Amino acid sequence: MNWGAIDRYAKSLIKEAGHKIRVSFYKTIDVESKAEANDLVTNIDRDIEQFFIRKIREKFPDHRIFGEEGFGDEIKSLEGVIWMLDPIDGTMNFIHQKRNFAISLGIYLEGVGILGYIYDVMNDDFYHAVKGEGAYFNDERLPMLENTPIEEAVIGVNASWVAPNRRIEHMPIVEMVHRCRGTRSYGSAAIELAYVSSGRIDAYMSLRLSPWDIAGGMVIAQEVGAIATNMKGENPHLLGQDTFIVAKSGLHEEILKNYIVLK
Amino acid sequence: MNWGAIDRYAKSLIKEAGHKIRVSFYKTIDVESKAEANDLVTNIDRDIEQFFIRKIREKFPDHRIFGEEGFGDEIKSLEGVIWMLDPIDGTMNFIHQKRNFAISLGIYLEGVGILGYIYDVMNDDFYHAVKGEGAYFNDERLPMLENTPIEEAVIGVNASWVAPNRRIEHMPIVEMVHRCRGTRSYGSAAIELAYVSSGRIDAYMSLRLSPWDIAGGMVIAQEVGAIATNMKGENPHLLGQDTFIVAKSGLHEEILKNYIVLK
Repeated sequence: MNWGAIDRYAKSLIKEAGHKIRVSFYKTIDVESKAEANDLVTNIDRDIEQFFIRKIREKFPDHRIFGEEGFGDEIKSLEGVIWMLDPIDGTMNFIHQKRNFAISLGIYLEGVGILGYIYDVMNDDFYHAVKGEGAYFNDERLPMLENTPIEEAVIGVNASWVAPNRRIEHMPIVEMVHRCRGTRSYGSAAIELAYVSSGRIDAYMSLRLSPWDIAGGMVIAQEVGAIATNMKGENPHLLGQDTFIVAKSGLHEEILKNYIVLK
Repeated sequence: MNWGAIDRYAKSLIKEAGHKIRVSFYKTIDVESKAEANDLVTNIDRDIEQFFIRKIREKFPDHRIFGEEGFGDEIKSLEGVIWMLDPIDGTMNFIHQKRNFAISLGIYLEGVGILGYIYDVMNDDFYHAVKGEGAYFNDERLPMLENTPIEEAVIGVNASWVAPNRRIEHMPIVEMVHRCRGTRSYGSAAIELAYVSSGRIDAYMSLRLSPWDIAGGMVIAQEVGAIATNMKGENPHLLGQDTFIVAKSGLHEEILKNYIVLK
């Protein structure tokens, strides 16, 4: 497997897709709801996913594609090479803000992340990593993360997970929110993973994410020593939705042990 | 009063201060806690405030300055011209992220906001307004906001206000969080006010803000038709801390009426 060639091709596709997205703001963006009212999709999400699929199949016909919009392959196993793609992670931000969204891509071999990319399109911020070879923010090598105690930690957690919900006990999360230095919520799992990887926040958690939301970011996060698991402390499920937490290593343990109580 | 001259001078000071802040990342940043452990301040916040004060006093010796770091005047009344300044709004972001902070400045005459500025330093995004003459994002005129029903609204609210607290009943806020399209939290009141003014989010609320956090943003928000009040629906207190909510006009009424229950 020539991973160097795959890496170069993936990077060029992402940059070209970013350009297409920026140009799309001069065209009409059609917004639709998916299964849930606030799960939005646009013609641009679909166009960008189809662009990737066409280009990947042209060059790597034996690779499979697991994309948010469903134009790729039906993925029921993690065999071979799989491109896990969210063409626009943070579609709500894309629609409402025209910023703060990202292209998220992870390329996995037999279920193991080899290449990871997060492209914050409007800031032209490109986070990327090759397993075992370190992670980069644009051309700058990202340093290994040092631990931060919870009292000094800034944690990415959406207000909706602090409210009563059916997945975790919310009162320990309330305690965590009060204990930590502060919380943030940016509305894009990919950008929040990129922020953890670059030390801008110390942890990020969500109660429901899909493989394409986290596949790229997990490769990057692991290269700087962050720990990414589901809320049981296991590898996140890569064939369907799961809970998720990524954090600096000691902080990950502390949050899981003291503040996450699954229902 | 030559407001044109004051406006031009304020803009040039803000741009120069932004440059000083960007350069400061090459120097040592000393971090200290203020009264509360998570209320942080750095030597840069202090340097920038002192730079403004020196420059303002040089040119407008009869204007008073109400600044977050306390180097300005002791302000006990709103008489005359007051520059309400937060040299770095979002100090925690400044320290942890080196981005997502802003210079916030409002210039008030007898308690009425005449000039407003928010400068997102690292994005070089400048929001500014003159009372009665419209608001601008860089060189672009910001359009008047159209209302958004709560079901389609993205609301800036920090997780800590969704938890039980001593200011408002948290269960109606939980209901609001579930009812709206989504929530965000960026860690800078000034940037969140700028986001409301430019239509990127539809409302923003906080249970405790100081005059310098909101003074600049309120001038901008009002020029695009947003309503900014405390949670009683009154003008926010400009001499001390208060609750705060800014939103598109119908949405402001809806949130105050249905979701804010003061204790």
